Amino acid sequence: MSQDATDAVLAAIRFDANGLVPAIAQQHDTGEVLMMAWMNAESVAETLATGRVCYYSRSRQALWRKGETSGQTQHLRDLRVDCDGDTLLLLVHQDGVACHTGRRNCFFLAVRDGALVEIAKPEVSPETLYGQPHHGHGHG
Amino acid sequence: MSQDATDAVLAAIRFDANGLVPAIAQQHDTGEVLMMAWMNAESVAETLATGRVCYYSRSRQALWRKGETSGQTQHLRDLRVDCDGDTLLLLVHQDGVACHTGRRNCFFLAVRDGALVEIAKPEVSPETLYGQPHHGHGHG
Repeated sequence: MSQDATDAVLAAIRFDANGLVPAIAQQHDTGEVLMMAWMNAESVAETLATGRVCYYSRSRQALWRKGETSGQTQHLRDLRVDCDGDTLLLLVHQDGVACHTGRRNCFFLAVRDGALVEIAKPEVSPETLYGQPHHGHGHG
Repeated sequence: MSQDATDAVLAAIRFDANGLVPAIAQQHDTGEVLMMAWMNAESVAETLATGRVCYYSRSRQALWRKGETSGQTQHLRDLRVDCDGDTLLLLVHQDGVACHTGRRNCFFLAVRDGALVEIAKPEVSPETLYGQPHHGHGHG
């Protein structure tokens, strides 16, 4: 991605008071919504430069290169900015699973028969992904 | 939706310091990501009770019944809570267009040939949707 393109994207984004913008990751070919996380200007620029999705972890207050620990990398296919510049849609190819629980996507809780239940099972264990029981949430 | 189910959903959501949670709206059958907006507890409860999506407008600081002015209603098909309870995915049927610009979805800005360009055209004019030129953004 050229510097001009990166500058154009950054100029179109209305980062919030904390310098962040929510980013939705969607599997580019199936349409599955994988997760939502946050980006700052540096993570947007790095993502465009490398083609690998980099978020900003609010809990760790640091860049979060998706898959750096778990190997579950997201490869950027396209980046979309919404009408008012305050949300991004990332079309990606997800290696493996997006969710730190080992599920393909993070949106596995739904109401069935009057209760909130899990509608998807882990495809891999968090121990396999992280080498040890994973504490805390994955989205910063 | 039963009160028990509504209570279960509300208990699972980690609203932010402003009492809000981001909600992604996805067309249930095509997988198209339509928009992202915010909900508070009251708007979540109303959405579950009525089956019509109600957001919270941050700019107007009021409930925002999607389509109330424009007629472009979102009918809830399923509501998903993510792994750490800080994002919702709404599977909906969108009447007409989701975006206040008259486009089907809000994510119509993308990088092409080094510049940020519009990759979708309005299907209806904002004047048709709102009766007059529409100022300000649609997502509160």
